[in-house]
Amino acid sequence: MTDTWWFNPCKAIDAQAREQAQARQQQLTKPAGSLGQLEAVAVQLAGLQGQVKPCVDRVWIAIFAGDHGVVAEGVSAYPQEVTGQMLHNFVTGGAAVSVLARQLDAQLEVVDLGTVTPSLNLPGVRHLNIGAGTANFVHAPAMTQAQGRLALDAGRDSVRRAIAGGAQLFIGGEMGIGNTTAASALACALLGCPVSDLTGPGTGLNAQGVSHKVAVIERALALHAAQRGEALQTLFNLGGFEIAALVGAYLACAQAGVVVLVDGFICSVAALVATRLNPACREWLLFGHRGAEQGHRQVLQSLGAEPLLDLGLRLGEGSGAALAVPLLRLACALHGQMATFAEAAVADRPA
Amino acid sequence: MTDTWWFNPCKAIDAQAREQAQARQQQLTKPAGSLGQLEAVAVQLAGLQGQVKPCVDRVWIAIFAGDHGVVAEGVSAYPQEVTGQMLHNFVTGGAAVSVLARQLDAQLEVVDLGTVTPSLNLPGVRHLNIGAGTANFVHAPAMTQAQGRLALDAGRDSVRRAIAGGAQLFIGGEMGIGNTTAASALACALLGCPVSDLTGPGTGLNAQGVSHKVAVIERALALHAAQRGEALQTLFNLGGFEIAALVGAYLACAQAGVVVLVDGFICSVAALVATRLNPACREWLLFGHRGAEQGHRQVLQSLGAEPLLDLGLRLGEGSGAALAVPLLRLACALHGQMATFAEAAVADRPA
Repeated sequence: MTDTWWFNPCKAIDAQAREQAQARQQQLTKPAGSLGQLEAVAVQLAGLQGQVKPCVDRVWIAIFAGDHGVVAEGVSAYPQEVTGQMLHNFVTGGAAVSVLARQLDAQLEVVDLGTVTPSLNLPGVRHLNIGAGTANFVHAPAMTQAQGRLALDAGRDSVRRAIAGGAQLFIGGEMGIGNTTAASALACALLGCPVSDLTGPGTGLNAQGVSHKVAVIERALALHAAQRGEALQTLFNLGGFEIAALVGAYLACAQAGVVVLVDGFICSVAALVATRLNPACREWLLFGHRGAEQGHRQVLQSLGAEPLLDLGLRLGEGSGAALAVPLLRLACALHGQMATFAEAAVADRPA
Repeated sequence: MTDTWWFNPCKAIDAQAREQAQARQQQLTKPAGSLGQLEAVAVQLAGLQGQVKPCVDRVWIAIFAGDHGVVAEGVSAYPQEVTGQMLHNFVTGGAAVSVLARQLDAQLEVVDLGTVTPSLNLPGVRHLNIGAGTANFVHAPAMTQAQGRLALDAGRDSVRRAIAGGAQLFIGGEMGIGNTTAASALACALLGCPVSDLTGPGTGLNAQGVSHKVAVIERALALHAAQRGEALQTLFNLGGFEIAALVGAYLACAQAGVVVLVDGFICSVAALVATRLNPACREWLLFGHRGAEQGHRQVLQSLGAEPLLDLGLRLGEGSGAALAVPLLRLACALHGQMATFAEAAVADRPA
């Protein structure tokens, strides 16, 4: 690999804008701290966007889809063709994230990195054909280095389009039958946790199904154990095309200075990989929600993340992040539009 | 008292609409249950509004304000004139809830039930002049029965205006320096909890201030102990004008069939009083958030409430409920607009 762009430096935070925003928060007509997490979020956004009054009106949602060879082991409740079928549903407006993107007036793009459905050609979907899904990582690396690099680049390219479209906030979503198995495997490899701690029912396995999934992941971890210390190779060994694209997107956002709102378990694992490759990207990542999938809590903890929502979501597609967008927008509106004690002639508490 | 309208029956839930909504949820293109709490909320709203596809686009926010005699005991970090000053801030657009109402395209009305500021006359505020604040409940009932009744009626009258304006969702907010003291006292009387369990810093007391607040509430509870079993008289003894108005509003909503989104600690205590007066109102109450004020968690538990947000808010003004409105709207949009498996030709999991 000649161009390892993912190691390039991330954009620095604007400390002055952040301090000015912090000072402004103290002057708004409310008891100090009474808007809780929304105050911290507004101040953080100010530092990231380099303006005292930040704004996340223009939102870009990119859905990355890919199939997973490990589905051959019987780790999912749904048939694998659903990945391709859902691509159609995303662009025709019937999927959850399609509804959310419409309601939020967000730009939605759908990137198919490689599914098992032959010669899929859907209007409105970018088909990249990196492979007919990944290889079954119980037997071999999920993807070649060339494939992994194409997937990382695909994430970066989406961010470039987002920037060209004026996006102030980037949300990555994912679709791929079997991808909670890949995410759990990746998280276990990177965090060194017992597999059962980070493995859940995904779209709806029963207890027996979860046990089988754990056993499959344990076999995969044993096969690829020698490379556990190398985050990039571990991503290629155990990840999925869509997960690698998310990693690339998050890193490209941090390098270009675009705020990221991370979705659920799979996206959080991609965020974990991204921070292992380039730790400074962490500052650019906000977290939308704590999901129902076992392991998400632990991955969030390892990232020091405090998500905005905790609604028992487990859909993916970027839906949990999209649901948190109004909170970010309202945090910005409160921060930018509330009167100060002086402006409103309201008495502040005695110092 | 001749007209005890608050005991009138609440509107019945439409079980058929609720069941149809539940059936629809099962057919949408997502793993069953994967939208977590938002699925339950959409189904509940369907039952309440009597339509399979509910809608909360039209939101009414009523802010009820009043002053509290108990502030003479030194229980608040802010001077009492702030109540009147904030009324001005509400109608001139600088307060948090003013910003939120604008962003949500919600109707905001401000009702001053009675403050200490003499002859306040603010354009856009309904001044009801029930009293110059309540009496200090350490020495006497906070309000007379006549005052309490006027406050309950004021809440009902706001709901009538909301209905005339086509509201699909009612949010009550409150403003009143000292009102966490009244709310804690009320909650302790109704729940029989130790005062220290339900008493917190309010707008910003230190530990010493909280201890003093606890002692003040204990004196009040001792004075009014004989009437603890009577919810209405307890409200008049320990409540505030704005709290009584919230009780009246919640009951009027339940009777007329308007969904309520309850705000924070003080509003939740008003909801508790309402359910003690007329238990069937409970079904009409949704809860916006779990706040930072100590005691809110316990009051929510006693109501069996599962709020949507948990962001460490402690502002009041209806702000926490307003912040949850986009989640309700998005829950309705997802429920109403997502494609079914059949419509989208997506394979469901094997039964």
